[in-house]
Amino acid sequence: TYAKVDHHRELRNGYPEVIYSPGKSLDQIKGIVQNMMERSTGNILASRAERDVFEAIKSVSPDAIYYEEARSVVVKRVEYKTTEDYILVVTAGTADIPVAEEAAITAEVMGNQVKRLYDVGVAGIHRLLGNVPIINHAKVIIVVAGMEGALASVVGGLSDKPIVAVPTSIGYGASFGGISALLGMLTSCASGIGVVNIDNGFGAACLASKINKL
Amino acid sequence: TYAKVDHHRELRNGYPEVIYSPGKSLDQIKGIVQNMMERSTGNILASRAERDVFEAIKSVSPDAIYYEEARSVVVKRVEYKTTEDYILVVTAGTADIPVAEEAAITAEVMGNQVKRLYDVGVAGIHRLLGNVPIINHAKVIIVVAGMEGALASVVGGLSDKPIVAVPTSIGYGASFGGISALLGMLTSCASGIGVVNIDNGFGAACLASKINKL
Amino acid sequence: TYAKVDHHRELRNGYPEVIYSPGKSLDQIKGIVQNMMERSTGNILASRAERDVFEAIKSVSPDAIYYEEARSVVVKRVEYKTTEDYILVVTAGTADIPVAEEAAITAEVMGNQVKRLYDVGVAGIHRLLGNVPIINHAKVIIVVAGMEGALASVVGGLSDKPIVAVPTSIGYGASFGGISALLGMLTSCASGIGVVNIDNGFGAACLASKINKL
Amino acid sequence: TYAKVDHHRELRNGYPEVIYSPGKSLDQIKGIVQNMMERSTGNILASRAERDVFEAIKSVSPDAIYYEEARSVVVKRVEYKTTEDYILVVTAGTADIPVAEEAAITAEVMGNQVKRLYDVGVAGIHRLLGNVPIINHAKVIIVVAGMEGALASVVGGLSDKPIVAVPTSIGYGASFGGISALLGMLTSCASGIGVVNIDNGFGAACLASKINKL
Amino acid sequence: TYAKVDHHRELRNGYPEVIYSPGKSLDQIKGIVQNMMERSTGNILASRAERDVFEAIKSVSPDAIYYEEARSVVVKRVEYKTTEDYILVVTAGTADIPVAEEAAITAEVMGNQVKRLYDVGVAGIHRLLGNVPIINHAKVIIVVAGMEGALASVVGGLSDKPIVAVPTSIGYGASFGGISALLGMLTSCASGIGVVNIDNGFGAACLASKINKL
Amino acid sequence: TYAKVDHHRELRNGYPEVIYSPGKSLDQIKGIVQNMMERSTGNILASRAERDVFEAIKSVSPDAIYYEEARSVVVKRVEYKTTEDYILVVTAGTADIPVAEEAAITAEVMGNQVKRLYDVGVAGIHRLLGNVPIINHAKVIIVVAGMEGALASVVGGLSDKPIVAVPTSIGYGASFGGISALLGMLTSCASGIGVVNIDNGFGAACLASKINKL
Amino acid sequence: TYAKVDHHRELRNGYPEVIYSPGKSLDQIKGIVQNMMERSTGNILASRAERDVFEAIKSVSPDAIYYEEARSVVVKRVEYKTTEDYILVVTAGTADIPVAEEAAITAEVMGNQVKRLYDVGVAGIHRLLGNVPIINHAKVIIVVAGMEGALASVVGGLSDKPIVAVPTSIGYGASFGGISALLGMLTSCASGIGVVNIDNGFGAACLASKINKL
Amino acid sequence: TYAKVDHHRELRNGYPEVIYSPGKSLDQIKGIVQNMMERSTGNILASRAERDVFEAIKSVSPDAIYYEEARSVVVKRVEYKTTEDYILVVTAGTADIPVAEEAAITAEVMGNQVKRLYDVGVAGIHRLLGNVPIINHAKVIIVVAGMEGALASVVGGLSDKPIVAVPTSIGYGASFGGISALLGMLTSCASGIGVVNIDNGFGAACLASKINKL
Ligand SMILES: Nc1ncnc2c1ncn2[C@@H]1O[C@H](COP(=O)(O)O)[C@@H](O)[C@H]1O
Ligand SMILES: Nc1ncnc2c1ncn2[C@@H]1O[C@H](COP(=O)(O)O)[C@@H](O)[C@H]1O
Ligand SMILES: Nc1ncnc2c1ncn2[C@@H]1O[C@H](COP(=O)(O)O)[C@@H](O)[C@H]1O
Ligand SMILES: Nc1ncnc2c1ncn2[C@@H]1O[C@H](COP(=O)(O)O)[C@@H](O)[C@H]1O
Ligand SMILES: [Mg+2]
Ligand SMILES: [Mg+2]
Ligand SMILES: [Mg+2]
Ligand SMILES: [Mg+2]
Ligand SMILES: [Mg+2]
Ligand SMILES: [Mg+2]
Ligand SMILES: [Mg+2]
Ligand SMILES: [Mg+2]
Repeated sequence: TYAKVDHHRELRNGYPEVIYSPGKSLDQIKGIVQNMMERSTGNILASRAERDVFEAIKSVSPDAIYYEEARSVVVKRVEYKTTEDYILVVTAGTADIPVAEEAAITAEVMGNQVKRLYDVGVAGIHRLLGNVPIINHAKVIIVVAGMEGALASVVGGLSDKPIVAVPTSIGYGASFGGISALLGMLTSCASGIGVVNIDNGFGAACLASKINKL
Repeated sequence: TYAKVDHHRELRNGYPEVIYSPGKSLDQIKGIVQNMMERSTGNILASRAERDVFEAIKSVSPDAIYYEEARSVVVKRVEYKTTEDYILVVTAGTADIPVAEEAAITAEVMGNQVKRLYDVGVAGIHRLLGNVPIINHAKVIIVVAGMEGALASVVGGLSDKPIVAVPTSIGYGASFGGISALLGMLTSCASGIGVVNIDNGFGAACLASKINKL
Repeated sequence: TYAKVDHHRELRNGYPEVIYSPGKSLDQIKGIVQNMMERSTGNILASRAERDVFEAIKSVSPDAIYYEEARSVVVKRVEYKTTEDYILVVTAGTADIPVAEEAAITAEVMGNQVKRLYDVGVAGIHRLLGNVPIINHAKVIIVVAGMEGALASVVGGLSDKPIVAVPTSIGYGASFGGISALLGMLTSCASGIGVVNIDNGFGAACLASKINKL
Repeated sequence: TYAKVDHHRELRNGYPEVIYSPGKSLDQIKGIVQNMMERSTGNILASRAERDVFEAIKSVSPDAIYYEEARSVVVKRVEYKTTEDYILVVTAGTADIPVAEEAAITAEVMGNQVKRLYDVGVAGIHRLLGNVPIINHAKVIIVVAGMEGALASVVGGLSDKPIVAVPTSIGYGASFGGISALLGMLTSCASGIGVVNIDNGFGAACLASKINKL
Repeated sequence: TYAKVDHHRELRNGYPEVIYSPGKSLDQIKGIVQNMMERSTGNILASRAERDVFEAIKSVSPDAIYYEEARSVVVKRVEYKTTEDYILVVTAGTADIPVAEEAAITAEVMGNQVKRLYDVGVAGIHRLLGNVPIINHAKVIIVVAGMEGALASVVGGLSDKPIVAVPTSIGYGASFGGISALLGMLTSCASGIGVVNIDNGFGAACLASKINKL
Repeated sequence: TYAKVDHHRELRNGYPEVIYSPGKSLDQIKGIVQNMMERSTGNILASRAERDVFEAIKSVSPDAIYYEEARSVVVKRVEYKTTEDYILVVTAGTADIPVAEEAAITAEVMGNQVKRLYDVGVAGIHRLLGNVPIINHAKVIIVVAGMEGALASVVGGLSDKPIVAVPTSIGYGASFGGISALLGMLTSCASGIGVVNIDNGFGAACLASKINKL
Repeated sequence: TYAKVDHHRELRNGYPEVIYSPGKSLDQIKGIVQNMMERSTGNILASRAERDVFEAIKSVSPDAIYYEEARSVVVKRVEYKTTEDYILVVTAGTADIPVAEEAAITAEVMGNQVKRLYDVGVAGIHRLLGNVPIINHAKVIIVVAGMEGALASVVGGLSDKPIVAVPTSIGYGASFGGISALLGMLTSCASGIGVVNIDNGFGAACLASKINKL
Repeated sequence: TYAKVDHHRELRNGYPEVIYSPGKSLDQIKGIVQNMMERSTGNILASRAERDVFEAIKSVSPDAIYYEEARSVVVKRVEYKTTEDYILVVTAGTADIPVAEEAAITAEVMGNQVKRLYDVGVAGIHRLLGNVPIINHAKVIIVVAGMEGALASVVGGLSDKPIVAVPTSIGYGASFGGISALLGMLTSCASGIGVVNIDNGFGAACLASKINKL
């Protein structure tokens, strides 16, 4: 009664319901995983999972894998079928990697090929300009950046691919927990950028996966 | 000297630079249009154009057409090649139509087939549920909504297509000029939604066009 | 002297003063409960109570019951008289349940029949549409939702009953601790919705109880 | 195509769809009124209507009446059936009256008896305390106040009736267009208050009418 | 070198520099107290002092007294001379008392007679109306309230004395850490209210003391 | 019915109710003035009055005087009795003068002696330091400043008199219509400053007058 | 009395007081200019001047020149001595030019050589990369950009010169009148950037001039 | 792969890339330091470093020094060459010193002579006025202040040197974590002030160093 798992979501949306861990008790999470094991056949993903969530899931599903940096738990029940086209995940700095990994793991679970290009922020723009080919051959690009988020604008100006921008809460003071990057990405002078919530690597992967599979 | 038109943008980004009219004098706009007429061959689009901008452009390019509701001026120099897949533009209310039309006209100028589904907001959800087929056959969906922007979540829950959400400034009081709809779309419980700036029909069309042409 | 318990509140408002626990020392809380035990006869409720508050109250009133998920302590001194009409408490997700339970327990203490319908958020709208009868037979509906709070608009569009909407602080990033849901509920395109403070299950129950008893 | 009038709303919600005038062209408004005249039989209400909206409606429906202070146009097609219980509309100051009148007219169109008590703000609290009987005999109370909105708390503390609070944009500086009153009403120390959007007399009337007719 | 104690402040401002404890190391605080013991003769006050600050001061000045609820440390070196007129400190709730005590202790250290009237918030307005004489005989009134802060307006409407209003961070959700009360007090419909920073009992006492000694 | 003039306010608060002009029709203002002329004997003041408000008042009370810079209308019915102590009104710049004049005229109508010291902002601090005597001989000081409002802190550091600070909306960009000055004054490192609403010269005068007459 | 012109400012700060026009009456401006003509010998500058301000100044000082795009009036009384080093003023778009011209004209009046590089925003980054020499030879660079303000970060990453960043109010929606660009510049991943107020070309020039003359 | 150290930054920007510690694992930090030790020869600086970061760096580079108050780790590999001109670092209070020390240590590592003037805030302005010579002989001044940040305006009015202002998060309530000081510095009535992010001592030093070395 505490959860009505949406077993039709894969049919409607192309990927199954994902367990958002915060605010749920470990018992509730175990119950939801068990329900999914019984009622569906796809891979199971729990996002924003601390280690205790992983332990709880492992106790009901021993094959569960924990991607610590991505704070994601995966119960792999069917082999990932991987797309030929790839999603490129780009970060501005090293500190943005956890959000990027949440996006990358999620996209992989959903059956996408993923490439990573990390720490290429605009303060040293040669790092980005030296990687134009990998950018241009992607089918869709996820740009992950905190602080002022300028990387999204520069990548957006260089590429004709759809761009999904993820502001991160990296920074302090006037970063306001990611608001600064969020606003920067929403008002980017480069057009054709779709923005998701602050630190929402998961949502970026959902959108990129939908696009990559078109 | 007041403008360095980016003539390579079509090559890099798939569509030419678009003239954002506010903050430019009529003389500047005329100069930019003339420069584009001389240096490039594609269609020319001026967004956020009041009628005086249209008159100015018409004076240097007599074929210019004014889409009043969309506040857009188009100088059509090559025939639109229209995609087989279509972009669906959906609005919650009647008052969101100007932003939707900016998106629709822009997408058409960029060579996309566009379908429209207007005034299907969630206060009377049967209006939306009665239109599931046109939603499911689109390749990408632009959802335009003001106030609380709940329409994006509901469409997002019904469809496996990429969704571009445009919050509008329609509303008053706690709508805060579109912030309420913007936040609602960013934090949607339906995942796979890319959000653009408030009232940014133009940017939504750029992203949808990139996706539609994949 | 640290508290002037409002013993007339039941006469004026229909329910006695409730002890809001945060910011009070355990000694103050014990003193207030003792004062109420001596000076009035109704049931006693302490809201936002951590376990130590429960222990303190139990030490002066051994029958005290702790509703952990609802963070509420009840000293039941008179049998609840339960209304024939019921208040329906609806949540969008599993993580909204603690706020919903605060509302439900409070309403029950105040003598109302309560029904619960949890985890029926709009990302999977069939979960809601499959429950229309229980919605339509309620006398008043409390909708509890975080993130973008769209559930309030959809329920508001389906029903002719008064709706009390409670935004929750569930979410992250642009949820801003419940602001996003709050604004969404205030600007809902469905009219006839009364909004209470973020996470204020208690206040929602007060309003719903006043309505349910009309 | 610019509007899908929701003709079932009266069946579902107890009152017909109301025309929100801003952002619609006069032609669109005329079209919607004509559509309603043909397809339904209830009274027609247009809110937030400037005089030109009234003239437009009058041109297609000559009996239209304009309530100027309430900025509301009514096409009265069936006699109002008036409830025995009354809704009380209270304001803090004189400047809050237009919002209060929007609420009062809307409630009357929906078939409710309405009483008014204006300019009884807390700076001179004897004005309120001298009117306790009319407050206590109401079935539901709409409190309309700008600035700090303290009137809602004081009325809430005096009465056991459901209270619908409407913050207004009256004030300047730190009133922030009604935010100050809105926050004050949401965080009121008196519980059992449902808040609607800033200046939303219409929405307050919808909620109060639903309650009054229980 | 880390501190330039302002030994002339008593001459200029009527009371000596007070030590604001947060952000200072215990060594710095000890150094400042020692410097004051050597260079001046007045009473010493440290505000926002946790217990470790008290221990540190006691180690250099054994007579130091800790007012725990007020989070204030006093080194009493001269007897307080107490005014005949009194400052009245009023709170809305029990949870506002720590801020009120900071004000009261500070005012007493500065040589004022202080009276207290706690937990008389407007949700039960008879608690306030039953105390009009103590309000009317004060020379200046400090009103301390969180949530919506309406108490300041009601007291302001009842009295011809200068009122110093202190918003507190008591509350949750839309209280926003005291912003709601702050805005309510700044936009009060009762005029003649001077507002200080959120939770700033100290500053309120400084202003009230200046007024009380006129 | 649109106004319940508070004829006891002078008895309770020491000065009569003042007419706040915005949001009232000219007919309402005339009605209120006539009511006051009949029912009370004190001076009448209308604040925030444009010229048309003055004309309206003059039509019912031919002696009305218009203080244009202060946007205030005064109907002088009894001679001002002027205090021996004076209120000093200080401004940072020339553009702050209208708010300062609202304060000065209001204070004079209420029977206070007022002195003015204008355009002495901290960018040229010698202008202030050359005026220490007039500051030190005041009984209470009103500091009016926009932009960052630093003048309040500097005056507060120099004087032992109660200070009433009025932030103004002078400035642009990050001044945010006076928020910057408001926050600066609330968080001033000089203590003993009471802040009123942005541009609220009227309220500052009410508070200063209460203090000046102690 | 309405103005205390700061005739020592040139001695202290290196440039004379500048007349900020908004909020001053034309008579006040004329009076200030006359006072400066009599009491000092330097060039006179009025900023944010509409055409009527120019006419007013011209009436008392016929040589006044109006720089319309920069909204600046200059009374040139001594020949500009121009530095050998130059200040470079860069803009992201055409619409940022008015703010850039305010900076450029102000810097020229203060005796600096100025170069301009306009419309080189990051959406077409080759426009900037093709201009590295003029950037590298400047002594100090003023970067003027609206929307997300990313240009400041990119220039900051390319150059070892001090950078003064001016956010502009160009943009709409989530640009929030320049807040987005302001936050982006404050949180830039490129360090060594000093930010001034939104649209504050004047202040940027003051800082750049101080640096250029070192 | 988690980091692309920008080894050209010293060439381009005049100082090497600095390690911003938060959000990086200790292993990542060690890896970056080792990479720098192998690939470059300059001094290495890690900012915002807690003690565990220092221990980690020390394990790979035993000469590392920890400046605890400045939360900075330095690996000194070449002797600092110190400029003849000095940067002056000024603070308003004692609690601002950690940010000031971050600025001072950073500037020293970059080869600048630094002088310090701490605790001279405007509440006791004689402390500042007694130090005019050390202010006037600096080449550039860093002003560090929290609360309302008024010190920047007063120093700006006294000096013709470039000023870099650092708002700090010192304060509470309406200080909003440094926003109040930030806004105050951005809107300062003294012109020629460049502002950096809240608590950004590091960035202030970068800008001041660039200026000091001109
Ligand atoms: N300029 C002003 N700023 C703030 N409050 C004012 C002002 N002028 C008058 N008032 C207050 O507004 C109240 C009148 O509000 P109302 O009932 O709408 O006429 C009076 O009681 C005054 O205390
Ligand atoms: N969870 C809650 N949320 C909001 N208000 C509450 C809550 N619980 C109790 N209250 C109110 O808080 C008041 C008590 O405040 P206090 O005087 O500080 O004890 C009671 O009169 C209740 O109306
Ligand atoms: N465009 C501008 N932006 C910001 N400050 C300005 C501007 N123009 C002039 N100022 C400053 O405003 C001050 C004059 O303010 P006031 O006393 O109101 O005339 C001058 O000292 C200048 O330093
Ligand atoms: N309606 C619009 N909303 C947002 N950006 C736009 C819009 N129209 C054009 N643009 C962008 O604005 C840029 C032109 O800015 P500017 O250099 O000032 O002319 C173009 O490159 C477009 O990408
Ligand atoms: Mg890096
Ligand atoms: Mg509609
Ligand atoms: Mg769920
Ligand atoms: Mg009134
Ligand atoms: Mg209480
Ligand atoms: Mg001036
Ligand atoms: Mg351009
Ligand atoms: Mg100090």
